[in-house]
Amino acid sequence: MSAGWFRRRLLPGGPLPAPRPPGPRASPVPYRRPRFLRGSVSGPSAADASRCRDVRPVRSPARGRVLPWNAGYAEIINAEKSEFNEDQAACGQLSIRRSDFATEEDEEWLTLCPVEFLTGHYWALFDGHGGPTAAILAANTLHSCLRRQLEAVVEGVVATQPPMNLSGRCVCPSDPQFVEEKGIRTEDVVIGALESAFQECDEVIGRELEASGQVGGCTALVAVSLQGKLYVANAGDSRAILVRRDEVRPLSSEFTPETERQRIQQLAFFYPELLAGEFTRLEFPRRLKGDDLGQKVLFRDHHMNGWSYKYVEKSDLKYPLIHGQGRQARLLGTLAVSRGLGDHQLRVLDTNIQLKPFLLSVPQVTVLDVDQLKPQEEDVVVMATDGLWDVLSNEQVARLVRRFLPANREDPHRFSELAQMLIHSTQETEDGPMGEGQVSYDDISVFVIPLYSRDRGSSGH
Amino acid sequence: MSAGWFRRRLLPGGPLPAPRPPGPRASPVPYRRPRFLRGSVSGPSAADASRCRDVRPVRSPARGRVLPWNAGYAEIINAEKSEFNEDQAACGQLSIRRSDFATEEDEEWLTLCPVEFLTGHYWALFDGHGGPTAAILAANTLHSCLRRQLEAVVEGVVATQPPMNLSGRCVCPSDPQFVEEKGIRTEDVVIGALESAFQECDEVIGRELEASGQVGGCTALVAVSLQGKLYVANAGDSRAILVRRDEVRPLSSEFTPETERQRIQQLAFFYPELLAGEFTRLEFPRRLKGDDLGQKVLFRDHHMNGWSYKYVEKSDLKYPLIHGQGRQARLLGTLAVSRGLGDHQLRVLDTNIQLKPFLLSVPQVTVLDVDQLKPQEEDVVVMATDGLWDVLSNEQVARLVRRFLPANREDPHRFSELAQMLIHSTQETEDGPMGEGQVSYDDISVFVIPLYSRDRGSSGH
Repeated sequence: MSAGWFRRRLLPGGPLPAPRPPGPRASPVPYRRPRFLRGSVSGPSAADASRCRDVRPVRSPARGRVLPWNAGYAEIINAEKSEFNEDQAACGQLSIRRSDFATEEDEEWLTLCPVEFLTGHYWALFDGHGGPTAAILAANTLHSCLRRQLEAVVEGVVATQPPMNLSGRCVCPSDPQFVEEKGIRTEDVVIGALESAFQECDEVIGRELEASGQVGGCTALVAVSLQGKLYVANAGDSRAILVRRDEVRPLSSEFTPETERQRIQQLAFFYPELLAGEFTRLEFPRRLKGDDLGQKVLFRDHHMNGWSYKYVEKSDLKYPLIHGQGRQARLLGTLAVSRGLGDHQLRVLDTNIQLKPFLLSVPQVTVLDVDQLKPQEEDVVVMATDGLWDVLSNEQVARLVRRFLPANREDPHRFSELAQMLIHSTQETEDGPMGEGQVSYDDISVFVIPLYSRDRGSSGH
Repeated sequence: MSAGWFRRRLLPGGPLPAPRPPGPRASPVPYRRPRFLRGSVSGPSAADASRCRDVRPVRSPARGRVLPWNAGYAEIINAEKSEFNEDQAACGQLSIRRSDFATEEDEEWLTLCPVEFLTGHYWALFDGHGGPTAAILAANTLHSCLRRQLEAVVEGVVATQPPMNLSGRCVCPSDPQFVEEKGIRTEDVVIGALESAFQECDEVIGRELEASGQVGGCTALVAVSLQGKLYVANAGDSRAILVRRDEVRPLSSEFTPETERQRIQQLAFFYPELLAGEFTRLEFPRRLKGDDLGQKVLFRDHHMNGWSYKYVEKSDLKYPLIHGQGRQARLLGTLAVSRGLGDHQLRVLDTNIQLKPFLLSVPQVTVLDVDQLKPQEEDVVVMATDGLWDVLSNEQVARLVRRFLPANREDPHRFSELAQMLIHSTQETEDGPMGEGQVSYDDISVFVIPLYSRDRGSSGH
């Protein structure tokens, strides 16, 4: 759960609930949207991607369970399988048709570039808020959107360099249509497809929510392995990191009202009507009181990275557009994330002020050149929802990874066990392996993706 | 000159012009603005900051000349002192009054916190376009704006941590008004003052240009040494780097239509009327032709980092909002930079389409903690206008610095000589020290700021 209205799901130090069998296919169960989206809501209880022809679904992934998908390396653990778990996940193989020939003229190209499927792998974590509905819809939908978007530009993806013009023919490196000038790379087209897929999925979710009279939103963190590269697309506050023997590298950054302050303030500057006179665009170190009127206090506006002082006017006493800090920071007093899917109908409590105009569905995409990385046997990518990162730093996770994997080299389920161990370590008291006594009260989902392939001594795709 | 309409000032490989004596005080000479701002214009010929009470002016700095300011280490060289040089510079000591007491009640604080001046040092490079007027105005004005902005918040600057409330009294660390929560640091208030100073200066320039019927704009790169830190504020395409024995660190980044594509496209998305139906917001790999109508071509919109494909419509054939790449990229076909001062009246040739709404005067500020750095004797900051960086990479400049300084350890003017040598090396042919045969045709100005102080073995302030 990214939004902070109700985070306590696991009791500190208590045992993890036992894995539950997969439930029936999730069809959105009607429930009434609470005006301030607090607490749990009734609804579907687990991820279900059974409709997806191109993704082998993770059905209600239970902790420690090895997933039945053929690449065989990715593992998933969901920490907290309560009835109202808002974390959802999906993973599987992506199959993208390389060509879509319609005209007779194109037939001749078939012999040169036979129709085939470009295959990749897909892992996704969705952290819902205001109920699990949006997260379930995203887990059921996003991979299909991505497949569709990739198929629409596949000639650009399979070419050495994307052609300026998609002629409907298979494009080979000697094609004069190649665009040298801008240095546009194949990966730029995959990034574009991921960006478009997130937006398309957001539109689908909006329609589905409206049709079923439901509400909610979710963050989305997606990793796609394609042609020797790993693409990590993030919209929200989940996180992916690369852990190697000598390196810890963030593969995503978080999008919250704090990290996107300037974008959000700027929007309110351009369209002040979005605040309906109820909020102030300016940031102050704390909520101002009547006593502050006329005082000269610290503030920041949209164009500022630094802080300055201003004399407090009456309008500055309004509730701030972004308020609180760290895990408590809220957009319009309501939402803890600034990017994600859904939330089309989300409004500030007891007002008609919409959140959606301030939210972006477009992800930030990072590209990891796995082939170039020459991965070693214990190099992994760890993807997890915010509950993990609330209590474990990147370095702490890396230490746990580096301690666990070499000690369990012969265990065929060791990546799964590692994901489980990471979640366990967020439930530790002072006696735990980190000795920090930090406890997470949030749902947590973790993927551990090994990059090494025994066959090639390289990326495991 | 940042904008690319007329760059050839120095003949390749030719000798540098001899230094000229300082001219009379620059009072803006009226000249007619050419509609497309091509070629040189008549106007004042050299920087003149003689009006500044708080900055000891650099008067028409000639190459190799040691500057008469008391810190004694900063050196300046302007490469090309043609009559219409658009590069301008200023440097000197900043004196900021620590307190400004008005009421009797405050008098008691004077004994605790005596009135004194907080002193710093200031270096600034301005690279004009459309004539030197804006650059001269900036060189004459910006330091005063900065002093004023710093004095307005000086209690926040001298405090260990800036207080939430400026009470008009001198604030000591035990003051209950300190804002712990947000972790706002003294340097954030200096950054805020720099941001405000650039904006104030831009307004002053706008008024002066309007009053005198003149035009033009300039980039601005400023370094301020204050309380053991070096603040580098940049609006435009000049650059500052730190060069140490084992490190080269960029202290600024460039703001051009290419680097700020998403911000500029987004503005056009919010306010399409700014394009007056004459330009397309979308980016394509090349200018589209009638033949492309109906084709599926690569494009990017404001929300995209990647590239996608779209079917070309008639409106896509319009001239692109941002066109060209690298040094040739232009905003609205006119301007090569996206941040800077001035340009209030700049319009697209033969239209009423304004450039100014797309330009930001606010700089990006980087902070270098010089005290913490424990600088060595040959650690320097190199600031230069784009002409230098067009032909020399950061690493190449660093190699020249590391070769030159140890070999000239006894020369009291070695930083000045180094700045001169850097400019010379942009005029070399194949036989030059870099052996790369690159030649800059642009005005070039360079500051070399040594960080080491013999007295303290630390920062030289």
